[in-house]
Parts: sequence; C-alpha cells; structure tokens
Amino acid sequence: MLGEFMYCNPTKLHFGKHALDHLAEEMQNFGPKVLLAYGGGSIKQYGLYDQVMQILHDCAKEVIELPGVMPNPTVDKLYEGCALAREHDVDLILAVGGGSVCDYAKALSVSAWCKEDPWEKYYLRMEDVDNRIIPVGCVLTMVGTGSEMNGGSVITHPRQKLKIGHVFGENVFPKFSILNPELTYTLPQYQMVAGIYDIFNHILEQYFSGEDDNTTDYIAEGLMRSLIHSSRIAVKDPKNYEARSNIMWSATWALNTLLDKGKTTDWMVHMIGQSIGAYTDATHGMTLAAVSDAYYRFICPYGLAKFKRFAENVWNIDPNGKSDETVAAEGLSAMKEWMQQLGLVLHISELGVTEDMWEGIADGTFLLDGGYKTLTKEDVIQILRESM
Amino acid sequence: MLGEFMYCNPTKLHFGKHALDHLAEEMQNFGPKVLLAYGGGSIKQYGLYDQVMQILHDCAKEVIELPGVMPNPTVDKLYEGCALAREHDVDLILAVGGGSVCDYAKALSVSAWCKEDPWEKYYLRMEDVDNRIIPVGCVLTMVGTGSEMNGGSVITHPRQKLKIGHVFGENVFPKFSILNPELTYTLPQYQMVAGIYDIFNHILEQYFSGEDDNTTDYIAEGLMRSLIHSSRIAVKDPKNYEARSNIMWSATWALNTLLDKGKTTDWMVHMIGQSIGAYTDATHGMTLAAVSDAYYRFICPYGLAKFKRFAENVWNIDPNGKSDETVAAEGLSAMKEWMQQLGLVLHISELGVTEDMWEGIADGTFLLDGGYKTLTKEDVIQILRESM
Repeated sequence: MLGEFMYCNPTKLHFGKHALDHLAEEMQNFGPKVLLAYGGGSIKQYGLYDQVMQILHDCAKEVIELPGVMPNPTVDKLYEGCALAREHDVDLILAVGGGSVCDYAKALSVSAWCKEDPWEKYYLRMEDVDNRIIPVGCVLTMVGTGSEMNGGSVITHPRQKLKIGHVFGENVFPKFSILNPELTYTLPQYQMVAGIYDIFNHILEQYFSGEDDNTTDYIAEGLMRSLIHSSRIAVKDPKNYEARSNIMWSATWALNTLLDKGKTTDWMVHMIGQSIGAYTDATHGMTLAAVSDAYYRFICPYGLAKFKRFAENVWNIDPNGKSDETVAAEGLSAMKEWMQQLGLVLHISELGVTEDMWEGIADGTFLLDGGYKTLTKEDVIQILRESM
Repeated sequence: MLGEFMYCNPTKLHFGKHALDHLAEEMQNFGPKVLLAYGGGSIKQYGLYDQVMQILHDCAKEVIELPGVMPNPTVDKLYEGCALAREHDVDLILAVGGGSVCDYAKALSVSAWCKEDPWEKYYLRMEDVDNRIIPVGCVLTMVGTGSEMNGGSVITHPRQKLKIGHVFGENVFPKFSILNPELTYTLPQYQMVAGIYDIFNHILEQYFSGEDDNTTDYIAEGLMRSLIHSSRIAVKDPKNYEARSNIMWSATWALNTLLDKGKTTDWMVHMIGQSIGAYTDATHGMTLAAVSDAYYRFICPYGLAKFKRFAENVWNIDPNGKSDETVAAEGLSAMKEWMQQLGLVLHISELGVTEDMWEGIADGTFLLDGGYKTLTKEDVIQILRESM
C-alpha cells in the first residue's frame, strides 16, 4: 500500500554526449561569482577542467576555485569551503566530479551561512535548514550516489570516527546537473564497479521493506534488471556508451526520491558501510558490497516473501517445486555470483577491517527501524564477523 | 541507447487519503483570485466541491467558478474560459476533476492572454508559448491521462472534427496536484476501466519504439506489471485502496515525461483514437482500447524483437521452443484477454463508428513517424476495418 507522501524533484537534468553544451544556458540563471568545487587532478588530466573554465569565462563569471575535495569529504574541508564561500559571497557552487563532490557542494550550500557549527546542526542534530542556501549545480564524472538529483549529503568527521548523511529537502537539490556518460569512461574499473554496486544497493535499501503491494517496487525491479544487464556489458567493455548511459540513468533514478515514495526503507547496509568507511576510508560502494551478502542472508527470514519475489522477478529463479526459503536463498546466491563477476570486494578484511574494529564500527552504526528487522549492536557485530 | 535529452518535472504532488489537507498550504503561493474549473455535478454530489470551497474561503480567496468543462473539452469552452480569466485577471486556475478538466486548465493557462486565436496558435500550428501563463493546480478525481504532472492538453474542435493535443513545456505543468485515490472511488466502472487502459496505452506508446537497450523500457515493464496486477483487483473490488492507489501512481508515471526520455515514441493509437473521439465523442480510453489489438498486430512484424520482449517480460510468456512470431502473438493475445477481463470496448462499432466515417477518421489522424512503421492513410483504414 502506498502511504501518504509528497513528491517534488525540481532538478533539471541535461543528459547525453553533448550535455555540457547546456552549461552556458544554465549560467544565465545565476549571479557572477561561481565557486568551483572539484577533487583531485583527474578533471584536469582529461581536459574537463579546461572546458568548464572556458565556458565560465565565456559567461563572464568570476571563478573561485576550491580543489581537493576528497572521496569522503571531511568536516574540516567543509569549514574551509564555508570560509571561502562567505569571503567571496558566491552566487553558485558548481561541483565538477563524482558523488563526493556533489555531496560536499550541498553541505557547503547549507553550511556557508549557518550561524552555528554546521556539523553539529545539520549532521549530528539533523536539523532543518533555516539559513540562506547557496544554489548548487553539478557536472558529474562518476555515477553511483545519485547525488546529482537529490538532497543527500554525507560528511565525515575523522576525529569523531563518524560519517553521517543528511537528506535535505528539495530547496537544497541541485538546480541543474550535467550528465554525460562519456565523462565516466576514464574512471578506473575499481571505482566503476563500486559505483554500480552503490546504485544497486540504493535500490535494495528501498525495495526490502514492507510486505505490501506497491507500484514503486515494480519500478525498482525494472531498474535492477536494467542495471544487472548493463553492468555485465560495461565490466567487459567500459566504453560501451549504451551500457554506461543506462548505468548513469539508473543511478539517478535509484536515489532521486522516487523509490521510497509511500514506503518505509531499510538503509542498514549503508549505515554499516558508512561506519566502516569512517574507520578505513575505503571506497563507499565496496564497503556496501563487502557486508551485503551477510546482511541480506541475516534479514531474509524476516522478509521472506519479498526475498522470494526478488529471486523470481529480478534473478529469474524458477520457484517450481521449491520452498520459499530455497527460492529466496537462490536469489541471494545469484546476486552474489553477479557481484563476483563484477569484481566487487566481498570481504571487509580486504578493506582493512580488523577484529578489534568491530566494536567501534558497531557503535558508529546508526540502528534504523524501517527494514525487516531492527538490528541490535550484537547483530551488527555478527554481520561484521560473517563479512570478514 | 539513451539519446540526448533534458528532463525537468517541477510539479509538486501530494498523495494519499489526506492529500487535500495540503491544498491550503499550496494556496499561500498564489494571489487572491482563483478560477475554479470543474465538470458536471459529480464533485458536488460527493461533497468534494464543498470541501474545496471551504478551504478556498478559509484562505480568503475570491473564487470565480467555471463549471461545465466537458469530457472532451471544446474550443468554444476554451474561449469562454479565456474571457472569464481575463475579465477577473485570475492568479490561479484550480482544476477539480479528471484529465479533461486538467487538460482544459492548461489550455486556458496559455490561452487566456494569447493575442491570437489560441486554437490556431497552440493547437493547429503547435507554436511555443510566448505570452503570460496563468499557473494551474489540480485536484484529481479520475486517473488515466497523467495530466496532473505533465504539459499535455487535448482540445476538441467539433465543427472542424479535430481533436488535437499539444504537449507544453514545464512552465505550463501544474504547480501542484492533489492525488487522493479515494476520490476516484465514485467513478463508474466504465470510466475506471477506460482510465486504466488509457494508462496502459500511454506506456505502450512509449515502449514500442526503438530496438535499443534502454533503462526506460525496463521501468515501463515494471509499471505495466504493476498496473495489470492492480487492475485485476480493482475491477472486482473498486474500493480496494491498495489497488486504486497503485493505479493512480502508475498513471502519473506513465505520462510525466520519464518514459520517453532518450527515445522516440509511437502515439499512433492515440492519434487514431483521438480522431475517433472527434467523430463519436466516445470515452477517450475506450477509443484507444477498441483499436489497440488491430493496431499492435499490424505493426508487430516491424518491431518483432520488442513484441517478443513484451510477451516475455510483461506477460510471462515462456519462449522455449517457439518462434519469435509465436511468442509475440501470444503476448498480444494475453493482453487482449486481460482487456476482455476488464470489460473494455474492443470494437469501434460499439462506440458508434460506421463504415462511412472511416475516410474522415483516417483524414483526421495525424501520421507520426516515431514507431515501428509510419502508417499510410490506407493502413489506418485497414486498422479501422479490423477494429469494427
């Protein structure tokens, strides 16, 4: 059953090989000062930096550069950006990069003019935004997080060993995003497959909740089937435009607020994965992949009907003559086999997790209650043990 | 392959049993004069009119009433509304009703301040909007058209025997729509199933194009599976909230611009159906249903691979040991069987079409070229003959 909800997603997307051509027209909607946030050198290495700078200069923008946004953006980097954004009173934050840069841009968007410590207000206390918001635009170079069309923003506090995501409202969503699948070609295979699993897991986190009949879950199944199909092509042929464009489009719809409409959601793989990330600085998608098999087998008995449906509708498992438990288990095995084919990390020990970290990772895991079972700290430790 | 596209859908939706509670908050975004457009007496009969009027009065709105919007809104009704909207210089057009009322509200939105004849400018010549637009909000009482979250607007010119739809840009999309599935309970069964087929056909019109691998088509398959499932429940138990809410949500996503992204589209069933509507004033969804079987069997050989996929992924046809043609035909037979179960009209003669109308209906059918075969006038006549 679809519960009560509001849906509104005003982000404008430009998609395709020539999507960057639309950056200039978007620039007309904003004032002259642009804070350009990006990560390491890859956008310079492949020429994207020069292209973007040229467009901004042609639009007579004053560009304030903010390089060095790291894969798990830190609170200290956020403070640095806040000072810069205030100093120049910027009119737009333009994120050029992957989900981390987009997440960071949104954090900065609400934090720059926040009168309190934004980490405490917006991440520790998860309060609503009540200060001036600087608009954000994105040029995406990596897919996975869906950050280009939502209000999500994950920030890491290394000293507190905390990695927290706040999902802001539609006034914080990017005003526009530029999605050119070809910009993702240069991504190393490890990052590509981590991103693919991040997408898949976003769908699972929303799919595995509720026993009700819900149109949203049928859409989720369609997205998963498409993603499985395209990922098998992309992992062998990373420059296959058809596959990479489908992956990019699936990523956007996996987490642009459609798939949770009228439902509760789970998000425990993300909670455990983010806590692992705070301890290891491992790639986000790999932290999810490495705990998924253990996690889903752990909760399967509590949501058996949905796991059976998952096996049949997503993995084409034939249910004839089998118990529900067997069908569900065969679905999870099919998922694991696909994950192995992609080359995902399936053991947290490979990400640097050691037994002495379990306690701290479990303590840093927020225990949410939207899924089929509300985990205890002991459950988390068991899942970590089985994920080693 | 996903082609180049822009996606932007800014309509805000309030969904659920208590969706109307949000009308008052939406009213804060608009000026004091509200043009209230609605159809016949049904919204008065079931109390919705009184509820809406109470909310508008509580919000201190001046209400200008425009009743009598007919199922296929006419150009004369449009002229009447234009005069009223200009005379009172209204700030908002609030459509309370089904897709026809929403379509009409959008037509009025762009036509009221149009300096030329809006029928000629926006329907016959399909020009872009370059005049003042009056914002539109919707309270939906019937599902099918998807008009609550798109720019589509179909207007009929009875004297010219023309029924033309213009798809306007996102500046004409409703600013908000109120979707309460319970408001659809009072709809007669005939209208309900016609609406269900309208939804299904919207998906087919976008699905049956292109041979490429495209995430959008997987989403379409998910929506179709959900709709088939829920329609079978709703036709036996029209007050089943779960089924009716899924149908309502499917209708919105079937035609809110997502399913055509990066694709060409077909729309020939709608072109033929609309021409039949101009001759018979028959219920829109029934005009589509009555020509669909003949139409899809006619184009099947030109898009065989997609019809095979449709049979397998939507209707669970087992392809083992069968030719592609057989699999595709079994899929279409399964669709026809489902249409019979719903009680849809499957013959245009039952809608009042007589042989002497074929020539005129074919002349009034716009021959589009996005589908698997560009029809000729003779093809249309053959499809009409086979639909009798």
